[in-house]
Parts: sequence; C-alpha cells; structure tokens
Amino acid sequence: MDFELSEEQRLLVESARRFAADELTPNAADWDRDSHFPVDTIKRAAAQGYLALYIPEEDGGLGLSRLSSSLIFEQLAAGCVATTAFFTIHNMASWMLASFAEQSLKDAWLPRLVSGELLASYCLTEPDAGSDAANLRTRAERDGDDYVLSGSKCFISGAGSTDVLIVMARTGEPGAKGISCFLVPGDTPGVVYGRNELKMGWKAQPTRTITFENVRIPASQRIGPEGQGFVYAMKGLDGGRLNIASCSLGAAQAALEQSLRYVEERQQFGKAIASFQALQFKLADMLTDLTASRQMVRLGAAKLDSGHPEASLYCAMAKRLATDRCFNVCNEALQLHGGYGYLNDYPLERWVRDARVHQILEGTNEIMRVIIARRLLEQGGQLDGLL
Amino acid sequence: MDFELSEEQRLLVESARRFAADELTPNAADWDRDSHFPVDTIKRAAAQGYLALYIPEEDGGLGLSRLSSSLIFEQLAAGCVATTAFFTIHNMASWMLASFAEQSLKDAWLPRLVSGELLASYCLTEPDAGSDAANLRTRAERDGDDYVLSGSKCFISGAGSTDVLIVMARTGEPGAKGISCFLVPGDTPGVVYGRNELKMGWKAQPTRTITFENVRIPASQRIGPEGQGFVYAMKGLDGGRLNIASCSLGAAQAALEQSLRYVEERQQFGKAIASFQALQFKLADMLTDLTASRQMVRLGAAKLDSGHPEASLYCAMAKRLATDRCFNVCNEALQLHGGYGYLNDYPLERWVRDARVHQILEGTNEIMRVIIARRLLEQGGQLDGLL
Amino acid sequence: MDFELSEEQRLLVESARRFAADELTPNAADWDRDSHFPVDTIKRAAAQGYLALYIPEEDGGLGLSRLSSSLIFEQLAAGCVATTAFFTIHNMASWMLASFAEQSLKDAWLPRLVSGELLASYCLTEPDAGSDAANLRTRAERDGDDYVLSGSKCFISGAGSTDVLIVMARTGEPGAKGISCFLVPGDTPGVVYGRNELKMGWKAQPTRTITFENVRIPASQRIGPEGQGFVYAMKGLDGGRLNIASCSLGAAQAALEQSLRYVEERQQFGKAIASFQALQFKLADMLTDLTASRQMVRLGAAKLDSGHPEASLYCAMAKRLATDRCFNVCNEALQLHGGYGYLNDYPLERWVRDARVHQILEGTNEIMRVIIARRLLEQGGQLDGLL
Amino acid sequence: MDFELSEEQRLLVESARRFAADELTPNAADWDRDSHFPVDTIKRAAAQGYLALYIPEEDGGLGLSRLSSSLIFEQLAAGCVATTAFFTIHNMASWMLASFAEQSLKDAWLPRLVSGELLASYCLTEPDAGSDAANLRTRAERDGDDYVLSGSKCFISGAGSTDVLIVMARTGEPGAKGISCFLVPGDTPGVVYGRNELKMGWKAQPTRTITFENVRIPASQRIGPEGQGFVYAMKGLDGGRLNIASCSLGAAQAALEQSLRYVEERQQFGKAIASFQALQFKLADMLTDLTASRQMVRLGAAKLDSGHPEASLYCAMAKRLATDRCFNVCNEALQLHGGYGYLNDYPLERWVRDARVHQILEGTNEIMRVIIARRLLEQGGQLDGLL
Repeated sequence: MDFELSEEQRLLVESARRFAADELTPNAADWDRDSHFPVDTIKRAAAQGYLALYIPEEDGGLGLSRLSSSLIFEQLAAGCVATTAFFTIHNMASWMLASFAEQSLKDAWLPRLVSGELLASYCLTEPDAGSDAANLRTRAERDGDDYVLSGSKCFISGAGSTDVLIVMARTGEPGAKGISCFLVPGDTPGVVYGRNELKMGWKAQPTRTITFENVRIPASQRIGPEGQGFVYAMKGLDGGRLNIASCSLGAAQAALEQSLRYVEERQQFGKAIASFQALQFKLADMLTDLTASRQMVRLGAAKLDSGHPEASLYCAMAKRLATDRCFNVCNEALQLHGGYGYLNDYPLERWVRDARVHQILEGTNEIMRVIIARRLLEQGGQLDGLL
Repeated sequence: MDFELSEEQRLLVESARRFAADELTPNAADWDRDSHFPVDTIKRAAAQGYLALYIPEEDGGLGLSRLSSSLIFEQLAAGCVATTAFFTIHNMASWMLASFAEQSLKDAWLPRLVSGELLASYCLTEPDAGSDAANLRTRAERDGDDYVLSGSKCFISGAGSTDVLIVMARTGEPGAKGISCFLVPGDTPGVVYGRNELKMGWKAQPTRTITFENVRIPASQRIGPEGQGFVYAMKGLDGGRLNIASCSLGAAQAALEQSLRYVEERQQFGKAIASFQALQFKLADMLTDLTASRQMVRLGAAKLDSGHPEASLYCAMAKRLATDRCFNVCNEALQLHGGYGYLNDYPLERWVRDARVHQILEGTNEIMRVIIARRLLEQGGQLDGLL
Repeated sequence: MDFELSEEQRLLVESARRFAADELTPNAADWDRDSHFPVDTIKRAAAQGYLALYIPEEDGGLGLSRLSSSLIFEQLAAGCVATTAFFTIHNMASWMLASFAEQSLKDAWLPRLVSGELLASYCLTEPDAGSDAANLRTRAERDGDDYVLSGSKCFISGAGSTDVLIVMARTGEPGAKGISCFLVPGDTPGVVYGRNELKMGWKAQPTRTITFENVRIPASQRIGPEGQGFVYAMKGLDGGRLNIASCSLGAAQAALEQSLRYVEERQQFGKAIASFQALQFKLADMLTDLTASRQMVRLGAAKLDSGHPEASLYCAMAKRLATDRCFNVCNEALQLHGGYGYLNDYPLERWVRDARVHQILEGTNEIMRVIIARRLLEQGGQLDGLL
Repeated sequence: MDFELSEEQRLLVESARRFAADELTPNAADWDRDSHFPVDTIKRAAAQGYLALYIPEEDGGLGLSRLSSSLIFEQLAAGCVATTAFFTIHNMASWMLASFAEQSLKDAWLPRLVSGELLASYCLTEPDAGSDAANLRTRAERDGDDYVLSGSKCFISGAGSTDVLIVMARTGEPGAKGISCFLVPGDTPGVVYGRNELKMGWKAQPTRTITFENVRIPASQRIGPEGQGFVYAMKGLDGGRLNIASCSLGAAQAALEQSLRYVEERQQFGKAIASFQALQFKLADMLTDLTASRQMVRLGAAKLDSGHPEASLYCAMAKRLATDRCFNVCNEALQLHGGYGYLNDYPLERWVRDARVHQILEGTNEIMRVIIARRLLEQGGQLDGLL
C-alpha cells in the first residue's frame, strides 16, 4: 500500500490549485450572485485538459486515472464548487461517449468536447423517475434510420447552455434493460428547454427541464447497442459519484483553510478565538472528517481504476461519507465565523449551499445506502473480500 | 404540572395560524427572492397585536406571557420565518422600553411601536464585540443635557427601515457595568446606514451596519439609569432567545408538515415513498426532535414568566437545543424532497437558509453552552434545583 | 401550562431521593458485582409504596399519577438502576391486575403484591416473538374450568425470584386478537425456570427463560375476557416505557452529578479539569439532553394521565429520546472520568451497562420509531393536534 | 497510490485470521467471564511472531511495517479484543527496548520478550498524571551505579503477570525533559502490585496499580540517555495508538460479520430482519464507518512507516476516528441483536465493553483532539502539506 501522491500527481494538484486561485476563487462569489455560467472560464479550463481528465489520450484527453482526476477536481472545487461540478458532469458525459460509442460518432463529437468547443449535459433524471431511474419514461421510438424521442428530463445541469445531450431513453421493455443511450445535439428541433431553475446553490451553472417533443435523430447517434443505456448510465455514475464527492472535499478544504485564517485573526474576549478549546476541538474534528472523506474518495477511485468487482460499492460509500461529512465541515466552518459566516461577503454560506446538493444528486445518499446494503448483504457474513 | 394549552392559548394559536396562512405563507417565497421587507404586512400584524405580544396591557400590548407569545411566534414562523423573526426583535426592543424606561419616554414612543406606526431595531453587536458583547466600544459621551454617540453597530435587523433604535453604548468604565441603554430615533442626524447586507437567508428583512457619527440625543432618551444597559440587554435576550427558538419551531413544524404531504404524494419504485421504512424512521425522529424542542422552549418561557432564578439557564438550553434540532429537521426535510428540496419552488431550502442563522444570533449556540456550563458548575454537583 | 412540581411532588421526590441515598446507592455496586437480587430492600421499598405507585388507593396503592410515579422512579434509579427497573416492572404487572382483573382475582393477589409480600413478573416476550409480540406462540388451551399453558417466554425480569407471573398466551386466532392475559403463580407445577442469564448489566435482578410445560391454572385466573391480552399488554407497556425512560433519567442525573463533582476535584495540567472549555461544553450538552429527556417523559406521562388519544405516541417518543440521550449522557460521563470511568470502583461504567438495555426493552427504540411513524403519517400533514 | 494489500500482507492476514479463529474466538467469552489472562495462548501467539511484529528481524522480530502489523492486530482482535490489546502493548514496550536501549540491555532481555518467554508492561500513567503525562512524579534517584525508584503507576496492563516493566520516571527537572526510561524486572524487590482492578471490559488481561518502594536497579537498565524517556514514551504511543485503533477495527469487523449472519437468520413479522430497510441502512453506515476507520488507521501507519513529519497527527486522527466509530459499530450491532445483544451468550456486549476503553487509553480521544488541533493550527491556513 502507498498513500502518497506521486510526483506527477503533486504537479497536477499544484497546477489545479493555481488555476483555481487565478480563475475561480476571485469570481466565484460574483458568479453565484449573478447566476452566471462562466463559459469563458470553462473554455480556459479546457485548455488545461480539465474537461477531459479521464478521457483516453488517444481520444485527446489527459488519460488520467480516476484517482488523479479526483485530486484535480478537489483543488478546482476549492475555487468554485458549482463550476467544478459542471466540469465533472462534462467529463462524465464525454467519458460515456469515449467509452461506449462507435468510432464514427466519437470522431464527430468527442474532439470538440475535449477541447471545450462544445459542452455536454447528462440527461437521466425525470420528474417521476428520480431515485428509481430504471423506471424512466422518455421514449425513443425507432422510425426507419432514425429515432424519435419524446418525454421529459429534469434537473439537467448545464441545460440550455450546452451543445450535446447524453440522453437515456426507453427503446424497449420496462425496467433497466429497455433503456438505450443517445447523443442528442442540444439544438435539435423539438428540444425545448425550461426556465433556469432558481435553486439554493450551484447558481453558477444553469439547471433546466428539457422536454423532447418528437425529437428526430439519426440512429447513428445511439451510443452502443440498444438496451445498454442503463448500464452505461450507471458506469458513468460510479465515476460521477467520486467526482461530486471530490467537489465536496474541495469545499471542505477551502472552508477549513478559511476557518484557520479566521480563528487567528478574530479576537474575542481579548484573544484570538483560536485559543478557545471547544473551537480547537471542532477544528480537529473537521480535519479528521475531511481526511477520512478524502481517503474514502481515493479508495473508491483506486477501486474503479483497477476494475475491482466491488468498485460500485466503494464509490457509493465514498460518495455517501464524503458528501455528508464535508457538508458538515462547511456548516461548522460557517458557524465558527458567527454572523460573518451568514453573509455573502464571506464564502462560507456559499460553500454550504453548494455542497448541500451533493448529498442529493448522482443518486441520493439514501440510494447510496441501498446500494451499499445490497452488496454488503451479498457478502454473506464474511468480509474478507473488503479488507 | 400541566402540559396542555389553555383554551385561550388554543385560540391564539388558531388565529396566528390563520394569519400566517393568509398573509405570510403565500408571500414568503417572493419576499425571500426579492429581499422585500413587507412593511404593509407587518402593520397588519400589528393590528393583531403581534408587535406587542408581551408588552403589558396598560402599555397597549396584549400582555401575554412569554409562553403564549412563543406559541404565536411559532405559528407565524411557519408562514414566514424571516418576517416573524423581525416581529420578535421588535417585541424585544419594545419590551425593553416598556420595562425600563421612564414614563415620559414610554409615552413618547411606546404607543406608536405597539401600533406598528413605528418599527424598532435592537443595537448591541459591534464588529469587534460579537460574542463578547460586554466589551462593546460605541461611546455615549455626556454633553450637558445631551449624549453624543459615536461608534458602529453591525448585523442590525431592520436597520434602515426602522424608526427607533435601542442602542447599547458605553458611558463609563470598561466591561458590562459601563454600558447604558438609549433610544435613538432612526433619522437622527449622524446615524449612517450601511448597505443592505447580502446574506444566506432572512432576506425578507434588511440587515445593515449602523455608524453613529457624533449623534446627539437628549439625555431623556436614556433608558433607565446609567450602567444598566448591559443588564437590560441581557434581560431582553433571555426572551429574545425564546422568540428566535420559537421561530425555529415554526420552520420545523412547517417542514415536517410539508414532508408528510410530500411522502404521500411522491411515488418511487411503484409506491408512495411514505412506505419506505428508513424514511419513516427519519420522520419519526423529526417529530421527536421537534416535540422535544418545543417542550424546551415552553419550559424556558414558563421559567421566564415565573421569574425563576435559573430562567437564563433554561432560556439558553431552549435556544441551543431548539435551534440546532429544528435546523436539522428542516435539513432532513430538504433531503427527503430530493432535488425538489433544493429548488426555490419548494419552501424547504428557504427554511434551511432562514433557520440557519438562529444558531448564530441572540448569542451563538457556543455562547449558550458557556452560559449553561457556568450555571451548571455553580450547582455544585447537586441538581435538585433543576428538577 | 405549568412546568413546576407541586409541593406534594417535591416531597415525593425528596423522600425517594433519601430512600435511594440510604438504601440503594450504598449497595448498588455490590449487587451488580454479586448479581444479587435485593429482596429485603425491595420489601422495604414496598413499605414506602414504591411497588404500587400508580395502583389506585382503593386497591391499596399510592394512587399517584404516572407523572408523579415517574418522578419517584427517576430518583430511585439514581441510586440503583437495575433495582428500580424491577420496581417499575412490578408496578406495571400489578397495575394490569388492578385495572383489568375481576374483583375476586384482585382480592386474592393484589394486596400481597402491593405490600411486597409477593413480587410479580411480566411475561410477554418469546424467543421467536420479540419485536413482533402479537405473533406469540405460548398457548393457553381451555380444558373445562382450567386453562393449560404450554410454551416459552424469555428475558423475563425477576423470573425465578417472583411469585406471580402475568402471562400473555394465545387462546384463539393468530395475531393480536387471539391473545389473553393470565395470572400464573410462579410455583405452579410445570413452570420451569431457565438459568439466570449472564448479561451486560441489570445484574441486580435475575433474568430467566420460563417454560410452561402443561401448566394448569383455573380459568378464574384469566385477567379480563379472552382476546384482550394484547390490548392489556400494550396498555401496560405505555406506562412501562415511561417507567423505564424514568430509570434512564435517574442514571443520567446521577452520572451528571457525579461528573460535576469529579471535574472540580480532578486536577490535570495544574488546574481542575472543570476549567477546560471543551469539557464544559460537553457538560452543558449533557444537562440540556437530560432536561429535554425529562420534559419528554413528563409530557408523555401527562398525556397518559389525561387519557389523551395520542398518549401512546407521546410515550413512544419519550422512551426513544430519553433512553437514547440518557445513555449518551452516561457514556459521556464515563469518558470524562478517563480510566477511572472504566473501573467498577466508580459507578459510571455500571450506569452505562444498566442504561444500555433501556434502548432495547419494553419495545426496542426501532419499534418506537415504527409506532411514532405510523401515528405521524395518520395525522395527514396537519400537526395541530400535536401542539 | 495503492490501496491493495500485497500478496504477503494477504497471507499475514489469512494466518492471523486463522489463529484468531482457532485460538481466540472459541475462548474469548470464557476468558472475559473468568477474568483469565491466557498466558498459554499468548505464548503460542509468540510462536507466530505476534509478540514482536514490528521488532526488527535482526532483533528476532518479524520486522514488519506498522501497516502490516496493524492488519494482523485487526484480525486477531476480531477473535479476542482484550488479549490482542495485550499483544499490542507488549509489542510497543518491546519496540521501545529494541529501538532505544543499548545493545547489552537488548541482548539481556529482548530475545526472551520476542519469544514470549517474558512478557512486558508499559508504565507511564500515574494517579495524578493521566492526560498530563509529562507531569509524572515517580522518581528515579541516581545512587552510585544504581537508580532507586519510588512512586506509583496505575492502569498498568498485564501488571502482576508480566516480567518486564518499561517505566517512565523523573530523573531531573519538572516537565517532559526531566523524564527517563527504565527497564525494571517485575520481580525486583520493592515492586508492589495492587489488586487486579475490576473493570467494565478488557477482563482477559489484568490491570493493576504498581507502587515502587525504593526499587533499586542498576543504571545499565536505563533505556537511552537521561531525559529521553518522554520522547520514547510518545514515540511508542504513536504506534500504540494505531495498534489500539486496529483492535477497534477488529471488534467492529467481527460485530458487523456477526450482524450480517444474525439478520439473515432472525425472523420477525414473518421474514428475515435483513429485509427491513431501516436496518439495512444501519448496516450500510456500519460498513462505511468501518471502512473509513480502517483507511485512517492504514494511512496513519503508512505515515509512521515512512517517517512523515506529521505522522503523530495522522496517528492521533486515526486513533480518534477509528476508536469512536468502531465503538459505535459495535454498539449498533448490539442494538440490532435486541435482547440477545445484551446477553453474554452473544459476543456483542463484550465487544462493546472491550472497545469502550480504546476511546480512553493511549491518550484519551480528547487528548487526540488537543494534538490534532495543535498541529492543525501550526499549518497556518494552508493545508497542502496534508493532502
């Protein structure tokens, strides 16, 4: 076992930290206040490869492991959670294309996704199929050489500002096996975007409902064979969960660093509040929780990288623990800033609002528990395999 | 002992619930979105007596007990937390005037505060004296028949939209005993208001810094004798803590009721999510925590009403527990709404944002623990007095 | 509302506290170490009426309310949890006899139960019917003027040392409606006692399995009509849950008092550990949790006393919260005693061991959540009835 | 980074698991009940090298890393926590001798400690110097070629049954720098043992007070130079904390495995309780907490193995988190066994009792927070060094 970053990983971390400090941190509050989706910055991020971290090098990506990608997402999220979260979704969607599409479809779209010329959204969730995603109702009817899509997706990150939609739609029987995956250009006739949802956080990226009103696409835009869509969606989500958990790590790290600065500066009762023991204990627990969360994310990523048969279990545990604990770290950091923590002038309340949704999306933390329990019960009372 | 509401209390609850349903609930989302301070509604609330609940009847108030007042605040807060929180502050400030000012000063101002013609702010906190309020630095220098105030207050609720400022300022020695209390008309020359702070929640009421630039007021506007200001401020806060805890109760009750409706409606995996046991257990704990919080608030209020020597201890415990547990109830309610809980379309995320500050203001929950521990250690290992 | 003890209640508390200090506290460690069931002391408790607190006066009991009974149990438990817990079970069993039996059966047995000449056990749980008590399998077959009982009961407190068994057995159909309640003298032929179970705590009272091997009793020893047994058992348990929660309150209060003394005496780093802020905060939370627990128990007791339609809900919430939070208070108290807390020389570890089972028995805290959730969901999203 | 066990580590785990299953698991309940210190078994463990895991090979030990040692302790503790905990202490004491003593002293004692012919105790804590160990008062006065020790140690594991005492005693100034380390044969005249303490758990190993009544030992039995004792003691404890945290991992793993078996077997309401969702969620959280704890212990061990400058910080975080979370895992496991969990017939309550002390010893978890906070605050608000 080896828990140290490699030299290459240290350099990746360092450059991501610098990008965050230069491009994200100074603007994050404004983007949040103005609900501004920073497309220019996202394109500059693409120049660093941040939109294609774990896309293979032969497809133009950086070809990094999930673990290295996680390290980068963590650092970027310390600058702006919401923007980085969009990066992670673009990465996930692009990875599905890179991994499962035929070469011609990849050739047609992937280079421009990697370069950031085009942005992608991931379209799985529906109003009546949230946690129960396998029950989705958007249909893709075969019609000659085309498919015609009809139905609705909701909570689509980036929608309205992205160019490529990776859409899960039903081509066959009820349940997971009747679902296929499609690439739908965002400007295809019949693709109707809802209003930009007003939400608690993640304001730097738009969220919209998408309605498919008899949207006709060539069959060549199906990704992989019919019936594989749900499998791809879930494989995408294993990584997506680590990505979003990494964004929580970044928020928590930033919150803890900000707290450490604050407790040294802030004077109360004639001394820096860093000298109060109850507060010191709180800080100690914040670091411990952050560190444990980080270890779980890295463990999950390593399992995914190595193709471990229980990788989904590890990803689910990492997502559950890291998004829960890191939300708490942010929330405790807000508390120790007192009234200042509640003001937009400080980043604390934004981190709380942004990190909050990580407990919900990419599978709620309740669904994570369902996944974990199912795999755990299948171990049959002997946990050697999970050592 | 008797834990039941009296008939009169039931009627008060019922009418507050109706006022909330008619006047607050339908508008709370808009006020939050627009950062609108609903002065018209506040004046209508005054007509119900909600701006003078525990002001004595001889002073024009309803003359209710703290306990009955708490019941009303709870119901109102279920409609709009931020607006009700302002009611509580106005009540607290007016009560200080009613309780400690000379009759002439009361006659000059109290009737218009009771009627809602004028609104009041409570001005204690300073940028460098948050939790350590006794160390405040705003000075009130005696100059003939006047005082001249200079200094800054921050986090002042209502500031800029209120007419009367109840200001704690230093007239003497360092520490708590050198502080006096003043009524400063909000439009006195030299009273300078900062911008409306952007904050996580409580958006339906403005929060501003106030700077006193040689603000001259007649000595007759001092409330009570010199040196009593901190005592009054703390007495005000005992009730203020119950008030704000009551607002948390209202938010939690509203969140739980909304959750109960949602889990019956929302279908997943072919059935109402109310049928999932893990979610049922969560709901059970939410009710239990809400009920325990409510009992603690009522206990504290009863102790304050009866002049119990440990009333401050009970108020501190009530504030700590209720604001912590009820924030959690709101936050769990958000979680069980999934993605919808994160959208402004639903009230969940607003309740979370609004209730969050209750853990901070009127003395942070850390300061509550300081107060509780101090009194507890003075019991000397024998807790009979607290049974 | 009124949260103060009456003068009579203060006197009851005071005398219970004295009885505990004189008779229980000095011996509790020995009884625990020796697994000694202190029958002599129990008989002296009977002289105080502690074995018949809420038995009506006309039946020879003290005729106290559940609330007053709870106050007494709390004080007694501060002296010895396990012994007091037995008092509560004897009270519950005797109350069932007093409430539901025909006068002749009451006349035959109740006076000697009230006087402590005889002791009683409550026999509901079976090896295969723990939480699912309505599914019990012990049968009582009618045979002429007799019933013949066969089957097994487990976890029977006092068994082997008690004289009267209140037994729930099936006389009819499957489910709750086929169950009847019987008084079985403990020495009836065919009543076979298992060994005294070795357990984590509650060592001062024996726990045994009881097997009924064709135990013949006259039909006159049936309590109430056939088919009412489960109803009686559940009614008994409403109060039983408050009783056991009261025992947790006593343990927590004793643990907190002991902690307050210890932190003043114990010196570390050159000063009393009471001066460490993190520890002060812990103590503050312990008092707050104890106080909230106590309020919930009293609220539940008041609801039971007044016959409130939701009394079972309140009892379930009280039991859940108080036994969970008070276990934590005891466990935190152990922690702040460091290594000494782990030794039998101090009472901390005993309180932890004794209070632990309260989260399990009289319905596990998971079953409490089932009960709470069921009633909560039946409110239909409108919680006015629970204010 | 690499999170997988090496082939060698898998073999070590496998053989430790087998040793535990053969030698420890079948006897643990009896040893606990009888307070039996299983010296025979300990000697057989020595034959496996378990008494000298991280003693260098040139000194006769297995020369394993701390990380590999942790893996073994974890597996052994799943068999018997208390016995394994003694192994860890013997390892720690022997390692201090191996690391810091002169060769002649090592030659005289180490081979017999490695072989298990002799057993060792670690003597740091004193009645008045618990958490504040640097303030210890046992004196070692130089007298010619000897030292004469006087003073008292408490909570000494193994005392009375061990042969070698590694004793920290004051040879100079007050504070940490005046402390030296000595090897005192357990049967030296003047070494007086207290009674075997009665304690909550860890009953399979004796705990005694030791009083040194003018105990004369040759100066050659000092380990390292004068004044280094506290440094050695703390270095020993870094590893000791990982060891004890590993014992908590073992207890939690055993408790979770036992729970998985139980929930499949135990029927309630007509089905295996494994089918209840609330219970499934609990199991999921238990696995997640165990896994996170394990990762933290391994991370700490890796840092210690590599001589990372913040190794003590990582060891403190690992000890804090793992001993807290794993206690909870054991306690939840007890709960889901219901009444059976409370009986000695099942191992649950023993695991709870045994694991409880890990939150206290080798530095309480409060002291861990002191250590963590101190190092954290020294990072100066920039946490790159801890990535």
